[in-house]
Amino acid sequence: MRNIKLVCEYDGTAYHGFQRQKEDILTIQGVLEGKLSIITKERIVVTGSGRTDAGVHAKGQVANFKTTAKIPAGKFVPALNSLLPEDIVVKSAEEAEDKFHSRFDVKSKTYRYTILNHDTPSVFMRNYAYVIPYDLDIVLMKEAVTHFIGEHDFSAFSGSDTVTFSSVRNIIECKCIKCGKYIYITVTGDGFLNNMVRIIVGTLLEVGKGRFQPEDIKSILFSKDRKRAGPTVPAHGLCLIKVRY
Amino acid sequence: MRNIKLVCEYDGTAYHGFQRQKEDILTIQGVLEGKLSIITKERIVVTGSGRTDAGVHAKGQVANFKTTAKIPAGKFVPALNSLLPEDIVVKSAEEAEDKFHSRFDVKSKTYRYTILNHDTPSVFMRNYAYVIPYDLDIVLMKEAVTHFIGEHDFSAFSGSDTVTFSSVRNIIECKCIKCGKYIYITVTGDGFLNNMVRIIVGTLLEVGKGRFQPEDIKSILFSKDRKRAGPTVPAHGLCLIKVRY
Repeated sequence: MRNIKLVCEYDGTAYHGFQRQKEDILTIQGVLEGKLSIITKERIVVTGSGRTDAGVHAKGQVANFKTTAKIPAGKFVPALNSLLPEDIVVKSAEEAEDKFHSRFDVKSKTYRYTILNHDTPSVFMRNYAYVIPYDLDIVLMKEAVTHFIGEHDFSAFSGSDTVTFSSVRNIIECKCIKCGKYIYITVTGDGFLNNMVRIIVGTLLEVGKGRFQPEDIKSILFSKDRKRAGPTVPAHGLCLIKVRY
Repeated sequence: MRNIKLVCEYDGTAYHGFQRQKEDILTIQGVLEGKLSIITKERIVVTGSGRTDAGVHAKGQVANFKTTAKIPAGKFVPALNSLLPEDIVVKSAEEAEDKFHSRFDVKSKTYRYTILNHDTPSVFMRNYAYVIPYDLDIVLMKEAVTHFIGEHDFSAFSGSDTVTFSSVRNIIECKCIKCGKYIYITVTGDGFLNNMVRIIVGTLLEVGKGRFQPEDIKSILFSKDRKRAGPTVPAHGLCLIKVRY
C-alpha cells in the first residue's frame, strides 16, 4: 500500500468541521474521501492532523491516505482540485513513508486567530475575522500572550469536560500582532485541547478590554478552572496555518 | 429634502450588479433602497456613482439619496448595517449639499483588479482574484500600463456597441504591482466605458503572456477596434476602490 500525504487549504464556513460524521453532514474529510474514492476507484479513508471545528479554516491542514492506485503522487493535486468544490484546495501531494501518520506524528501546529478591530465590519473578511468594535489595549495583550508560552496544564482553556490522558501542552510560540485594523494572534504548540485557541483568544480579549490583567493568565492557568478564563470566541476567526512533523 | 451621501462596501458575488432591475433580481441598489425605505418610512431612490457589473465588488462605492426623515446622518450607518445582509456594509453617511449627485459629480474613480498568479487557486480569494496558473512577464506588463495613461479614445476597450456621447476618457493613473503571488492592476480615470477595466486587464495579460508587445497598446487604442484588444477578464477580480468628487 502506498501512503500519500496531502496539504490542503479550506474555507470552513460551509462545513461541519474536518472530521467525517453521518452521511448527510458536510465535512472536509467526507468530501476529500469521496473525491479520492472516485479518482482511485477504491474506498479511501483520510486521516487528518486533527479535527478543525465547524467554521474553522485551514491554510495548511495535513492529511494522509493509503491506496494501491498507480497514480503518481503529484497528479493527485490537479485530479483532486478538478473535482473538489471551490472552498477546498489541495496544495500538494507526496509519497510518504509507510509508517507516516498525520495525527500521531505531529511535532507542532500553528493556529492564527484574526480580529478586525474596527467600528464597521468588512464584507470581505466577514467569514475570516471576528469583529471587535471597541478599543483594545494591544500593549497589555502583547504582555499577556507571553504567559501562555511553555508547558502548562491548560484545563482552564479546554472547552471539553472529557478527561483526556493529560491536559498539559507545550506552547512554543504565542504572538499578538496589530497590523492596521487587524489583530493577529498566532499560537504554536505541540498539541491543543478542544477549543483551546479560541478560549486563549477570548481571554486575551478580556485583557485587551481591561477586565483581566496580563499576569492574571498565570493564576487562571494555575486554577485549572474553565470558568476563570474568558469566553470561547467564534470559530470563523480561526485558521490552522501549519502542521510540522 | 435632505441629501445623504453614503460610502459602501460590498461583495458583489451574490448580486446582479449595483443597478436596480426587476423586482426579483437581487441588486445592491435594490437592497439599499429597501432597507432605507424601512428606516425612513419613505420610498427611497438611491443614486450610485455608477453601475458595477454582476460579481464586481466595491470597497468605496458612493451613493446618495433624498429624504425628509429627521434621522441624524451618522445614524444611518448603524441603522443600515443592522438591517443589511453581511455582504453589504455602509462605511459612512453624511449630509451632502442639495445639488450633490453621486454620478454627475464624479471627478475620478479608482478600480483595482486582482490576479492570483499561482498554480493552485486560493480558497479564500476564490471570489476576489482571477487565477492565472502560468508565468506572466511582469516587466512587460509594467511597461504596457503606461500606454493607457492620458486622454485616449477607448473604443477598442469598450464592451458595448452602444454609441455614447464620446469614447474618450482620461486615465490619470494605471499601475501594475506584483506582491508575492498576487498582481494588482489599479486604474484611476475620470470615467470608464462598459467593461473597460476588464478589457484593459485582459489585454495586459496578453502582454504578460508575450502575445502582445507593450507598444501594441498604442496601435490597439488607435484602431478603435474591440477585436484588436484582449479578452474581457472575469468580473470577480474587479473592485471599485474609491470615487472622488
